[in-house]
Amino acid sequence: MPAADAALLAQVTCGDAVPRRRAIAKTITLLESTRADHRARADDLLNALLPHTGRSFRLGISGVPGVGKSTFIEALGLHLIGLGHRVAVLAIDPSSSVSGGSILGDKTRMERLSVHESAYIRPSPSSGTLGGVAERTRESLLVCEAAGYDIVIVETVGVGQSETAVAGMTDMFVLMQLPNAGDDLQAIKKGVMELADLVVINKADIDEAAATRARAQITSALRLFGLHGHQPHDDTVWHPKVLQLSALKSHGVDAFWQTVSEYRDLQTRTGRLAQRRRGQDEAWMWERVDAGLKARFRSHPAVREHLPALRDDVRQGTVAASVAARRLLDLFH
Amino acid sequence: MPAADAALLAQVTCGDAVPRRRAIAKTITLLESTRADHRARADDLLNALLPHTGRSFRLGISGVPGVGKSTFIEALGLHLIGLGHRVAVLAIDPSSSVSGGSILGDKTRMERLSVHESAYIRPSPSSGTLGGVAERTRESLLVCEAAGYDIVIVETVGVGQSETAVAGMTDMFVLMQLPNAGDDLQAIKKGVMELADLVVINKADIDEAAATRARAQITSALRLFGLHGHQPHDDTVWHPKVLQLSALKSHGVDAFWQTVSEYRDLQTRTGRLAQRRRGQDEAWMWERVDAGLKARFRSHPAVREHLPALRDDVRQGTVAASVAARRLLDLFH
Repeated sequence: MPAADAALLAQVTCGDAVPRRRAIAKTITLLESTRADHRARADDLLNALLPHTGRSFRLGISGVPGVGKSTFIEALGLHLIGLGHRVAVLAIDPSSSVSGGSILGDKTRMERLSVHESAYIRPSPSSGTLGGVAERTRESLLVCEAAGYDIVIVETVGVGQSETAVAGMTDMFVLMQLPNAGDDLQAIKKGVMELADLVVINKADIDEAAATRARAQITSALRLFGLHGHQPHDDTVWHPKVLQLSALKSHGVDAFWQTVSEYRDLQTRTGRLAQRRRGQDEAWMWERVDAGLKARFRSHPAVREHLPALRDDVRQGTVAASVAARRLLDLFH
Repeated sequence: MPAADAALLAQVTCGDAVPRRRAIAKTITLLESTRADHRARADDLLNALLPHTGRSFRLGISGVPGVGKSTFIEALGLHLIGLGHRVAVLAIDPSSSVSGGSILGDKTRMERLSVHESAYIRPSPSSGTLGGVAERTRESLLVCEAAGYDIVIVETVGVGQSETAVAGMTDMFVLMQLPNAGDDLQAIKKGVMELADLVVINKADIDEAAATRARAQITSALRLFGLHGHQPHDDTVWHPKVLQLSALKSHGVDAFWQTVSEYRDLQTRTGRLAQRRRGQDEAWMWERVDAGLKARFRSHPAVREHLPALRDDVRQGTVAASVAARRLLDLFH
């Protein structure tokens, strides 16, 4: 490892506050680089950081734009810092590569949290596929853990498949909902409700009757899903819960953290937290292998040369799709 | 092309009834073979059959075991033969590779249809992954079209991802439901409701009140999904419908076919049927490429040699998942 990287490693894992913060940013920038030599250095650095990772609680938070994620995460972050925690906030915004900038990137969204010395906020990587953005976020999460942040929050907007990516890199997945009927159906439809370990109905103070209705609907939906997995009275298994809160008024933030802590204790005690992480790591390895295979295939000279004509043949119905696939695979080898 | 295959081709596309039926079975058997020389012959045969394909209507039908698919397909098939059609029925049963035999394989399920000279029934291929089973079914569908069956029905049980595979190879996807609340929620949850161009509530005569409730729920769910795609009053766009019927009593079969015909007319007139097929062909090509890449990767000697140790490293947290993925990809090349 080059001396500069060894110094970076030392600063991330045990530096003083200010150089440490700068070292985290530098490391993440290196991880996000697409240059091959940077990538090789980043891989070495990542492996060297690994023994220092894994000691945080990883909390995923998802919700559609306008649900109040930033307000909630700021309130939660300040609450946690008050309890003595150090909090990192990362984001996955799959739209950022389209818009050229992250809609979650504005640190001023979390004005008080972002200037706190016990907090570290990093916006979404702003280029690449969802898989690439998720990979860089996942690696940033490891850097934050190695730097001693003991709560890492990964947030995402409810568009595309980013919820699955976030649920796949966190210990607990929280879905934020507005007190609207229909909102739940969308979440069920998209398969996001199924991922949720906890559903939070924000802005519950605005229309209490609607919030109560939404809560009943979500509870019954969660129960129905649960029926296919577990016994309803098995208390060694976490049953997803529904909470109401008002992030703006900071109502319900302590109850939220209480529930998260119950979940964490149960999952730790039963070994399911460690099991979930092992499964995530292996799934992640395969996800990256698949993405890499696709990228290599599509950039292969012989494939690139013959693909347009073969695709036209398939579209015009002169070559069967499966035959075209076999020909392309033969060209690749 | 060998003389035997040329003869097969001629028999499939313009033989007399009995040798034609035998030629179809022989061709499909060749397509299902895993021998490399068979596969090469099958590819040539498939491409030669292609100009004779595409003239049928491809109807996908899905539903959980017990919903009454066989009874319905028999009633529908006999109805269609009465109207002068020739009907082929294929099946995708992803569980057949586990159980060693297709639960849909029993031709006696459709006693009257299976012996009719205007019908051809083929059970699910009984080995391989869902992707492999779907590929062989998709190719069998082309053979049936080349043999002049002008309605091809592809049925599947509502387990696993087989519904997506069937919707991806048919012109219209029909979901059969029982008049149960909860049944719809499961379909919404699994993302199957979204695929449906038509939802059929079978056994509606047993509990009319429940069927009416289910119909209202499904209608409102379909409307909510539709809101995100199309204008509700755009009549150049198909809006998924819900029908009640009783397959056992053959009630509603003619209304069902009437609705299917309206759909087919609209999709043909607007060009969406041709567009859907082109999209399916291309998606299928890529699906097969991806599956082939994965298979080649996993059977690559260097990958096989190093995978177990690297996977252990990832599980034990000594190598980062993304680093392990990059190493495996480098071994592959």
